Amino acid sequence: MPERAIGVFDSGVGGLTVLRELRRQIPAEDLVYLGDTARVPYGTKSAPTVCRYAGEAARFLIDQQVKLIVVACNTASAVALEQLAENFQVPIVGVIVPGARRALEVSHSGRIGVIGTEGTVRSRAYERAILNGNPNVSVFAAACPLFVPLAEEGWADHEVARMAAHEYVRPLLEHDIDTLVLGCTHYPLLKRTLQNIVGDSVVLIDSAEETAKTVAALLQQEGLRRQVSSTAEPRYFVTDIPDRFKQVGGAFLGDSLDNVATISLD
Amino acid sequence: MPERAIGVFDSGVGGLTVLRELRRQIPAEDLVYLGDTARVPYGTKSAPTVCRYAGEAARFLIDQQVKLIVVACNTASAVALEQLAENFQVPIVGVIVPGARRALEVSHSGRIGVIGTEGTVRSRAYERAILNGNPNVSVFAAACPLFVPLAEEGWADHEVARMAAHEYVRPLLEHDIDTLVLGCTHYPLLKRTLQNIVGDSVVLIDSAEETAKTVAALLQQEGLRRQVSSTAEPRYFVTDIPDRFKQVGGAFLGDSLDNVATISLD
Repeated sequence: MPERAIGVFDSGVGGLTVLRELRRQIPAEDLVYLGDTARVPYGTKSAPTVCRYAGEAARFLIDQQVKLIVVACNTASAVALEQLAENFQVPIVGVIVPGARRALEVSHSGRIGVIGTEGTVRSRAYERAILNGNPNVSVFAAACPLFVPLAEEGWADHEVARMAAHEYVRPLLEHDIDTLVLGCTHYPLLKRTLQNIVGDSVVLIDSAEETAKTVAALLQQEGLRRQVSSTAEPRYFVTDIPDRFKQVGGAFLGDSLDNVATISLD
Repeated sequence: MPERAIGVFDSGVGGLTVLRELRRQIPAEDLVYLGDTARVPYGTKSAPTVCRYAGEAARFLIDQQVKLIVVACNTASAVALEQLAENFQVPIVGVIVPGARRALEVSHSGRIGVIGTEGTVRSRAYERAILNGNPNVSVFAAACPLFVPLAEEGWADHEVARMAAHEYVRPLLEHDIDTLVLGCTHYPLLKRTLQNIVGDSVVLIDSAEETAKTVAALLQQEGLRRQVSSTAEPRYFVTDIPDRFKQVGGAFLGDSLDNVATISLD
């Protein structure tokens, strides 16, 4: 079992920011990534539809004999995690709880902002996870639907991104937050622009890093760490043809994307 | 046969701009609309995937006994129209040829710009349709991936939209175009912003209006016009739950959306 791969899935390229952190923190592990690029994005879709897609993605990874599944998509983590944990035997790690925990660690004022897709914000999953850790803090959330297309367009540092960020984040700043959770795997690409808008007194939380830490700890705890370092490159699967995934994904992974195959989930 | 409905499909809400024109120009007709909201958008997906989705959408409309199908999505019209015409017996009308024909009618200089999704621009379908009508004109195209999310966010007249439009359209203006085809059903919502950027000397072509004219002429020519005016409201089908479709679609239709049911295509 420990020699099996870790499965990671996302609606598209965003989860590659999580894969990148997994490679950095636990380089001995073998990784399989699935991007549901034929149906991306999940963030504008309803909970029942995202649950169905997430179930199909997890089923595919299980068929690849993975030992653990990382739901590297905030929207799917927000609405489908419980259902996945009920339906599959392997440990399932989402990106919400690690990000929420980290926010509670760094916030001094107890005033925490969360930005994400419509689906993630509507689910209030971050709010629940944060208040579950400490019911005395205040959580303020804002949906930022333009950030995903801005990141994919390569405009993360463009004046258009700066203006959109200002528009979305201003209401959170008016609530005097000191911590801002980047509640979407695309948003780390906008880190520089967002830090400029919120100023140095607000700490940005990148779930990718926290999620990889959680995975590393869980592998240790469950006796699932590989004994022999894998020399295999990650394998990538997508549901549309790989061209756009390879082209856009490079910026998310910080590396070139080879070894990409198309599969069908529906 | 003439008493049957006209079927209209799009990846989501955008095609409602075409439905709106059909209601205006041929109010006697009965209309069925399908938005593939569980898999929207098509514009960032590959031609084979969009062809598969378009085939499934057309099959659903055929099962609803429609007499004619309008492909109210530029991306699907660009890549799937021939395949649909081969596979189905009813007349199939896309949005590309009507828009291309109109551009040739209004352009004096023969320098025509086209804006659309990545899929539409990559297909070069407008260029082929325009040059097919007149091989002596010049066509300049630009993909504008942010326009769809901007329109859906309700930011069509926002400074962010103005700046994005400026960035996308400037290279076309440097080619001295006198006509600009809005090659995506979402773009009519950005008309005011775009007209401000391009100035009064450039004519904007809205495919929705031209497509409805083509449908009206085709019904007449094929003896398919309804004899008795329909009193039925349009019926709407979507592949995700209807909430977001109703909420965002109102601005595209210019009317409230009732009568929306969820169906499955895959």
